[in-house]
Amino acid sequence: MASKANNQNWREKLHEIIYEADTPAGKLFDVILLIVIVASILIVMLESIKGFGTRHYNILNWAEWIITILFSLEYVARIICVKKPFKYIFSFYGIIDFLSTVPKYISFFFGGIHALAALRALRLLRVFRILKLARYLGASKNLVNALKASKAKIFVFLFVVLIVSIILGTIMYMVEGEENGFTNIPKSVYWCIVTLTTVGFGDIAPQTPLGQFIASLVMILGYGIIAVPTGIVSAEYTSQKNKDTSVPDVNLNTQSCSNCSAGNHRDNAEYCYNCGYKLNHG
Amino acid sequence: MASKANNQNWREKLHEIIYEADTPAGKLFDVILLIVIVASILIVMLESIKGFGTRHYNILNWAEWIITILFSLEYVARIICVKKPFKYIFSFYGIIDFLSTVPKYISFFFGGIHALAALRALRLLRVFRILKLARYLGASKNLVNALKASKAKIFVFLFVVLIVSIILGTIMYMVEGEENGFTNIPKSVYWCIVTLTTVGFGDIAPQTPLGQFIASLVMILGYGIIAVPTGIVSAEYTSQKNKDTSVPDVNLNTQSCSNCSAGNHRDNAEYCYNCGYKLNHG
Amino acid sequence: MASKANNQNWREKLHEIIYEADTPAGKLFDVILLIVIVASILIVMLESIKGFGTRHYNILNWAEWIITILFSLEYVARIICVKKPFKYIFSFYGIIDFLSTVPKYISFFFGGIHALAALRALRLLRVFRILKLARYLGASKNLVNALKASKAKIFVFLFVVLIVSIILGTIMYMVEGEENGFTNIPKSVYWCIVTLTTVGFGDIAPQTPLGQFIASLVMILGYGIIAVPTGIVSAEYTSQKNKDTSVPDVNLNTQSCSNCSAGNHRDNAEYCYNCGYKLNHG
Amino acid sequence: MASKANNQNWREKLHEIIYEADTPAGKLFDVILLIVIVASILIVMLESIKGFGTRHYNILNWAEWIITILFSLEYVARIICVKKPFKYIFSFYGIIDFLSTVPKYISFFFGGIHALAALRALRLLRVFRILKLARYLGASKNLVNALKASKAKIFVFLFVVLIVSIILGTIMYMVEGEENGFTNIPKSVYWCIVTLTTVGFGDIAPQTPLGQFIASLVMILGYGIIAVPTGIVSAEYTSQKNKDTSVPDVNLNTQSCSNCSAGNHRDNAEYCYNCGYKLNHG
Repeated sequence: MASKANNQNWREKLHEIIYEADTPAGKLFDVILLIVIVASILIVMLESIKGFGTRHYNILNWAEWIITILFSLEYVARIICVKKPFKYIFSFYGIIDFLSTVPKYISFFFGGIHALAALRALRLLRVFRILKLARYLGASKNLVNALKASKAKIFVFLFVVLIVSIILGTIMYMVEGEENGFTNIPKSVYWCIVTLTTVGFGDIAPQTPLGQFIASLVMILGYGIIAVPTGIVSAEYTSQKNKDTSVPDVNLNTQSCSNCSAGNHRDNAEYCYNCGYKLNHG
Repeated sequence: MASKANNQNWREKLHEIIYEADTPAGKLFDVILLIVIVASILIVMLESIKGFGTRHYNILNWAEWIITILFSLEYVARIICVKKPFKYIFSFYGIIDFLSTVPKYISFFFGGIHALAALRALRLLRVFRILKLARYLGASKNLVNALKASKAKIFVFLFVVLIVSIILGTIMYMVEGEENGFTNIPKSVYWCIVTLTTVGFGDIAPQTPLGQFIASLVMILGYGIIAVPTGIVSAEYTSQKNKDTSVPDVNLNTQSCSNCSAGNHRDNAEYCYNCGYKLNHG
Repeated sequence: MASKANNQNWREKLHEIIYEADTPAGKLFDVILLIVIVASILIVMLESIKGFGTRHYNILNWAEWIITILFSLEYVARIICVKKPFKYIFSFYGIIDFLSTVPKYISFFFGGIHALAALRALRLLRVFRILKLARYLGASKNLVNALKASKAKIFVFLFVVLIVSIILGTIMYMVEGEENGFTNIPKSVYWCIVTLTTVGFGDIAPQTPLGQFIASLVMILGYGIIAVPTGIVSAEYTSQKNKDTSVPDVNLNTQSCSNCSAGNHRDNAEYCYNCGYKLNHG
Repeated sequence: MASKANNQNWREKLHEIIYEADTPAGKLFDVILLIVIVASILIVMLESIKGFGTRHYNILNWAEWIITILFSLEYVARIICVKKPFKYIFSFYGIIDFLSTVPKYISFFFGGIHALAALRALRLLRVFRILKLARYLGASKNLVNALKASKAKIFVFLFVVLIVSIILGTIMYMVEGEENGFTNIPKSVYWCIVTLTTVGFGDIAPQTPLGQFIASLVMILGYGIIAVPTGIVSAEYTSQKNKDTSVPDVNLNTQSCSNCSAGNHRDNAEYCYNCGYKLNHG
């Protein structure tokens, strides 16, 4: 029984290191994880550069193996120290953590069929490891609330942009025609989106005077409607900020529940707000 | 007389299905209509893609006929179940619904003269069916009010943009001249709008140092005046939002009057707010 | 003395027609002037289009003479009916009105030396007639006040944009060099402004990886600082609007003082707010 | 002792001229410094223009020597008249002032090895003299506070933009491939930033239908998220403005402490707010 308590204690400590950033060990873990993620992304990028990828194949391969093993260890450690491992495994971060380790192992076992396009795509999937950084985004609560509150309006806005693009794209297809690069309606709609959003690649550009006149209208329209999402977010954010100041300040820490993994508890919290499990104060 | 009441009853039910979305049948009708509209737009787009359009001519033609017949049935049903059909026929949606069916019939009767450019344009008119989607835009009341309130200011703003574009376009025509792509004043004005709105296709770009200097001023000016419509909409929207919170909440439903087709009645409404006709609560 | 009073009366009436828009005659004058201005601009534009300008030389020349004579009559009439003609002549609109008539006369007297570049530029000056439209911009008072209030901040902002552009332009000149289109520092600064303002012509684009990396930073910086003028104007406009609602509504009309030409008097004004001259109510 | 007091007096006066702009001599010093800085930047720019730089080598070289000597004198004067010279030397402006003089001297002593690339870069460093203009930016306090208050949120925003760019860049690399200009992942990420920020050079543009579809999503996403920084700055600036109106107005002048160089004292200040040293009222 003493052994079990000991074992329990060991898991609690590991949980504290991995999931929280209030202790020196926890902070160190976070910094190392951050560096490994960034290194991992850089390797995927460098690999894709022709010449560099083939010349330094050995170094990149070794570095990739080290990173894969580190992520594997992290994944196993996270599963061990959480009370409800299945909840973690099927959570957003659980899936990301799993996908961060798997591609290298697959490319090892199916290494013979190296040229397989699907496998190449799989190796590029490692870039999604960057989503592990989402853990560090912190609680930009106001902004997320503002975006949530304006979600419906932004959706309506994008819907209108799409309708306008399809109609104007079709008109431009009729006016400019295939000889000026507007080879079909989907391409004209693509041009219209490029123009409405003020990106303006210039790979397709109207050549006829009438086409240029309509394009001018599209551009001024696009210039005008950029005001709409900005106005919405701005107004919602202001109202979120005002709402915020009427709520007493609450200090949150990075502690997370060892039972259900819920984070951002208040400094003076004794029990998890999500599952009621007793929190242990390091 | 019982038969007439029966007939009346049947029309009322049809009205409920077509114009309202509170009953399961009404919701189903809406979903089917949405799918048919999107399918119809996709067909117009696919038809325009060279190769694809000719290769799959038969399938696209059949699909187009099915959609045309469905829209025709919808159009007839809408006329039958409304009390004042002429008001519907000459309303915005009535005209859109009519134009959604007509092009295919015309191309059928004048099919022999297939190559006619006007007919080709007419077939593309089917893309305007997308305007039927406007029914689903919902009541983004605040936003529309904000835009209405700032309409006059946005008009003044566009007027100023036009004046600035014409003057700067003429100056660029003088500075750069025909050898650098500024072949005439309308084209220079077009370039100026492209630049002021920060689209920047790059099909025409100043080559002389003086032209590039003036272009820099135009760009910084454009960068500055993008703030104006945004500021207007943002401020108007905020004031609309504030006004809104001082009005008690009213729950609107999708019910529409079977006499005058006015929609968005309050949940507790007994009579149409527009014509005073008794509403029937399904 | 009766004759003088009569003469006086006649001038007062002319003043009312030209400077005010409250009587039917005044409105008619405004509409005609608007049409003549727009026609005048269109002629300048059409003239610049090669082929069209030479083919229809006679028609354009005649139309230009008619417009010049109409503007001359307007200019003389304005001088006659104002009490202090010199104040009008040296005012903004007085100079614009004068410049609207003069180029055609000069091209008539120096017509022999048609090919003179300076003369060609002078003829294009006629496009500035569009500034006569400024009279119709109306009193978008809030917006102008908001821009005035944020003038200093927008100037500081543009100053910072310029400093950033010069430094980043120099760095890009060092990194990319002449072989990639960054032939000298002014051109690099031009590229930097094109990029910072998100216009992006693409006539000059970085080719080296380091150059593309710095360009990415420039773009994200530009994307970030576009928020600054927008935020300023938005906040100032909101505060202008709030200030505005605390002031009782005053109805202004288009009447203007026949002594000093000051406009926008209150509906119930008896004397000019600017010079104290008695206003005559039509 | 009289001599020492005299010397003291002389240094105080120099301090007043150089660091303050309330006296005629101080204003004159500021205007001359401004002109010299602008002239210095223009020379660096003109030197970089091929042909011009070599043709007018002598004039540019002489002008550069005059400017270097003026800046050297200014640097020495600033060191002499400040009480704590080391604090000035290692301050931001101290380093900028030093770097403004040094490149010309180095190019003089190592003039033989003119072609040295490092030296050429050093000469271009003179463009950083423009940072001396930062002294004239004035106290746009609200704006800086608004940016400081939204610093954390803007950082989170840029972080999200980077994550999105890396993921979408990798996807575009898979979809478009090397044959369409997306030669490696860093280049694809560069394209993605160009597109997300609505710059759109067009040197790389998607060619496949799927690539153009994803590009459309990227553009609409970019169009949507431009609202976020604008909304943040706008809201923060509004709240800064509101906070500001509740503080009584304080008039600041350009006087600066002769002991610690702290500036922007209140008009009625007797002692430096930073070090408590007695201020002398010129």
